[in-house]
Amino acid sequence: MIWCLWVPARCSCLRIGLSGEGTDAVVILEKTPFQEEKIPDLLKKPMHAELQVHNDIYCTFYLSPPPELSEIKATVVYPATEKHIQKYLRQEVHLIRETWQDYKNITLPFIQAQSFSIQWVYNILEKKAEADRIVHENPDPSNGFVLVPDLKWNQNQLDDLYLIALVHRRDIKSLRDLTAEHLPLLRNVLQEGKEAIVKRFGVPGSQLRIYLHYQPSYYHLHVHFTALGYDAPGSSVERAHLLADVIDNLAMDSMYYQKRALTFPLRADEPLFKKFQEAGKV
Amino acid sequence: MIWCLWVPARCSCLRIGLSGEGTDAVVILEKTPFQEEKIPDLLKKPMHAELQVHNDIYCTFYLSPPPELSEIKATVVYPATEKHIQKYLRQEVHLIRETWQDYKNITLPFIQAQSFSIQWVYNILEKKAEADRIVHENPDPSNGFVLVPDLKWNQNQLDDLYLIALVHRRDIKSLRDLTAEHLPLLRNVLQEGKEAIVKRFGVPGSQLRIYLHYQPSYYHLHVHFTALGYDAPGSSVERAHLLADVIDNLAMDSMYYQKRALTFPLRADEPLFKKFQEAGKV
Repeated sequence: MIWCLWVPARCSCLRIGLSGEGTDAVVILEKTPFQEEKIPDLLKKPMHAELQVHNDIYCTFYLSPPPELSEIKATVVYPATEKHIQKYLRQEVHLIRETWQDYKNITLPFIQAQSFSIQWVYNILEKKAEADRIVHENPDPSNGFVLVPDLKWNQNQLDDLYLIALVHRRDIKSLRDLTAEHLPLLRNVLQEGKEAIVKRFGVPGSQLRIYLHYQPSYYHLHVHFTALGYDAPGSSVERAHLLADVIDNLAMDSMYYQKRALTFPLRADEPLFKKFQEAGKV
Repeated sequence: MIWCLWVPARCSCLRIGLSGEGTDAVVILEKTPFQEEKIPDLLKKPMHAELQVHNDIYCTFYLSPPPELSEIKATVVYPATEKHIQKYLRQEVHLIRETWQDYKNITLPFIQAQSFSIQWVYNILEKKAEADRIVHENPDPSNGFVLVPDLKWNQNQLDDLYLIALVHRRDIKSLRDLTAEHLPLLRNVLQEGKEAIVKRFGVPGSQLRIYLHYQPSYYHLHVHFTALGYDAPGSSVERAHLLADVIDNLAMDSMYYQKRALTFPLRADEPLFKKFQEAGKV
């Protein structure tokens, strides 16, 4: 049986009960971007074309491309817990304005009580998984990191370039933990990340959006590198913080992120939202 | 001959010289969204699947769907003039990191030398235009503002709700001019703007993204109010600044925006980009 959970513009997420076992899987389907070099082929192949509208110099057609020229990326989470399933369900979203007090009284105890596994991060840092995908590493245990392509990026085109820097040290949960002590680490990520990306992929630093999420989806400090022209999910102002801004803020005031209120979006069904609701903060 | 002009994530635009005639056409290719009801069919069909990555409970595959389940929308402009082609050409965009010195030496002289007319803003403030569209006004000359629906919003649905607050005072060009002196004005915009929108449109403040652009598209201080679920152009972290963050930064340090470097995107053909280039800052 298939429950369709979520169908944004070009992405689809399904809940599939595998036969007899009662074990859920989350399947996310995405149409991948065009590959520029395949387009001449695409236009040369005979295919079914249906004229939709013709007005003056404008007309629109629907084409049915051959299988080798269309591609769907399927991400499967299996076995999936209820938490994984909830993560992909479409829900009402609200902004939370979290003061430092709110962080200490509501968010931090919540994070500490969670046991969301980040084994996959440790697998990458320890080269137990994705070792062949590493684009750059600074092995320093305090100020080093590993740069890997994000699983959302198939690396076939640069338009949706997406890499993640995972820091080696395991004691920084998020933006909220950062102080001036972490400036050397953050500057390494910014500088070496840009250098590694221009070297490997030819995309200059001025065309990269380099940012942290708050709240992050996992509490091990990581930095997103996305193509500036790519409207990456989570790159909106209510969730993203430019690494260059974070560095400047910490250089101006070491305790900046232990003072400032921070805004972030939460889905109404998320447990953290309920905690803020119970505290009368929504 | 085919020149490929423009290939964003899931959309492609080509320039095609039709045989012998020297007449151009613009062809825009777009992968269409999934249709929810076709997904069970899609998953039941036998198709080629290639495993890409497997790490812990996560794996990704590439699927090649049959032609009847994938679809490309083609928009053709033929014959296309040079103007049509320019319209669809992808312009290279770069991020600028502007220090306060850069602002004073490059950006401010550039703004002062421009004669961007903002008569349309004064027309609204003086009720010479759009007076019937005003959703809320605080008439105070120092701390007041006018709230109007943005012209991009047709007001037919709340999904893409978009309003603009234009302040009455005319001496604030942008974020760069703000100090703690402006806190009463900014707090009025935040508070009264939210109240007016929930009253008129029923959208609560927790579902509004309230932000300033830097660089703004016109140099008279204004604040954007968009539906949180709407991926409004210019709401990405590299251009938007949440009003609540701006207020907190000014409350912590009156000169925050005269100290901090600010990042913003510029197209390579914009005059301000050339100024930064001439100054060796790109």
